[in-house]
Amino acid sequence: MPKTVIGVMGPGDGATETDQQCAYELGCAIAQQGWILLTGGRNQGVMAAANQGAKAANGLTVGILPTADNRQISPAVDIAIRTDMGNGRNNINVLSSDIVIACGMGMGTASEIALALKNGKPVIVINCSPGATEFFQSLSPQQVYNADSPTEAIDILKSLG
Amino acid sequence: MPKTVIGVMGPGDGATETDQQCAYELGCAIAQQGWILLTGGRNQGVMAAANQGAKAANGLTVGILPTADNRQISPAVDIAIRTDMGNGRNNINVLSSDIVIACGMGMGTASEIALALKNGKPVIVINCSPGATEFFQSLSPQQVYNADSPTEAIDILKSLG
Amino acid sequence: MPKTVIGVMGPGDGATETDQQCAYELGCAIAQQGWILLTGGRNQGVMAAANQGAKAANGLTVGILPTADNRQISPAVDIAIRTDMGNGRNNINVLSSDIVIACGMGMGTASEIALALKNGKPVIVINCSPGATEFFQSLSPQQVYNADSPTEAIDILKSLG
Amino acid sequence: MPKTVIGVMGPGDGATETDQQCAYELGCAIAQQGWILLTGGRNQGVMAAANQGAKAANGLTVGILPTADNRQISPAVDIAIRTDMGNGRNNINVLSSDIVIACGMGMGTASEIALALKNGKPVIVINCSPGATEFFQSLSPQQVYNADSPTEAIDILKSLG
Repeated sequence: MPKTVIGVMGPGDGATETDQQCAYELGCAIAQQGWILLTGGRNQGVMAAANQGAKAANGLTVGILPTADNRQISPAVDIAIRTDMGNGRNNINVLSSDIVIACGMGMGTASEIALALKNGKPVIVINCSPGATEFFQSLSPQQVYNADSPTEAIDILKSLG
Repeated sequence: MPKTVIGVMGPGDGATETDQQCAYELGCAIAQQGWILLTGGRNQGVMAAANQGAKAANGLTVGILPTADNRQISPAVDIAIRTDMGNGRNNINVLSSDIVIACGMGMGTASEIALALKNGKPVIVINCSPGATEFFQSLSPQQVYNADSPTEAIDILKSLG
Repeated sequence: MPKTVIGVMGPGDGATETDQQCAYELGCAIAQQGWILLTGGRNQGVMAAANQGAKAANGLTVGILPTADNRQISPAVDIAIRTDMGNGRNNINVLSSDIVIACGMGMGTASEIALALKNGKPVIVINCSPGATEFFQSLSPQQVYNADSPTEAIDILKSLG
Repeated sequence: MPKTVIGVMGPGDGATETDQQCAYELGCAIAQQGWILLTGGRNQGVMAAANQGAKAANGLTVGILPTADNRQISPAVDIAIRTDMGNGRNNINVLSSDIVIACGMGMGTASEIALALKNGKPVIVINCSPGATEFFQSLSPQQVYNADSPTEAIDILKSLG
């Protein structure tokens, strides 16, 4: 049986300190639950921080890379899925996650939330503006959960499990 | 030299009457300018209406289908690009458009706007809520143009050309 | 109704003079039949020659590019489909062709023939070694047609139409 | 640092008993080396057998599925990458493998060998006809290795590591 995979999506070079701290804690907590962490795999922002958090807690990490090689990979990625699809890999990110957490906001993150909703996945948003959260809730109210902290996000994950 | 391609994105079965009327007029106007219309190719909502409009004005239409065959195709699509990629084709929709018009809103449309912005494309939004428009403008103010009518959208297209 | 699209696949920088001459004639003949030519879109080898042939006969040409932009595009491509998928776009090349012609051989071409067969498309091979032709015929005898000249390839196309 | 991933490709419902026995042994041996097994993930033929072999040896298995869900998944897949890309996922299969082993032959397998070569990956063929092996060696002699047994394939893998 395939293992439970939690996707953590968020900005790369546009990530704030808070986004990264939050992503690190999410990565830790996901690993502690025995779940696999999936990210976009690059060594930047939320992706890098979540992978570091998961490895600090001895978790297993999957990175869905936009590239054909490992050039931009976070060193905390265990399993590199090289797509050579650029932003087209965002649909694979969300399809391969059982639940998606969006931590912070950016253009790529917004595409991942929208694709997750379109593909029927639950999405937990954390560290997003009220306007962003309201917008995505307006697209599909029952799929979007707002979390005020990593702890609350993990509680929501458990309740969805 | 490749021809100018204008993408019209919008909801399928969730499209309103206004969305469809607007898409039809956009399709007409795009064809009248000698531009090629690109859509997601399915026989529903904004995609179907835009293609009908373009054909009514003797335009050329390209449909980027989510499927491996023509099962769901709008009969007003001239050139069928069959991707077999589901929603993953949304990235191709926007990359293959020189400018993207989002007419109405839905989960797929939101993903296309976000992917268009991420890929550096100008996006004209029409018939979207103020909250949606503000959200996307917050992601990249200089790439998002709001149009109040198909005529205004075409004026913006010309100014961007 | 979507127009008939014929895909011409073949080597890029590894194309021989014969491959290119053959591709040029195929492009011409496809355009003269009123069919659309589809290639991998790059300005090299078989892709470039087929597009030139089609434009010399006033045809319409579609290029499915591996890139996110037009950097490598043949100037004889009318409609650029930008996939940003590298060799992953080869599956779209064959899915979007009603019939595939392989003109010459290389690693990319071999992948396109195999993907075309897997997706149920007829494949006409021209200017390929007997060993290559036999190999692909062994995979699916009834889908692979050998042509000794562009004229014979067009005759086979007509018979399959 | 990403772990070493070995891809085992081969026919699904067209797999012979020998193909499956060979794939099972390869899966075992790959796991025993501490490498990760990557397959196309479906519960058929070479994919299913390789995954069973790897799990029998307590290995970790990644399945790159053609679907958006787990409908066709081998129960011996640990990590499901859901692409919704049909045969388009074959390029991801080979890009994400450090070395590709082709065990048996079919249309999909042929596409994977060709894509692996195109993407610069070493390919070990086992249980393929002399004609098939010669064809792929003619495309790129230095990338294609012939193995007469799973043991020999593993020896080649070690020498390439």
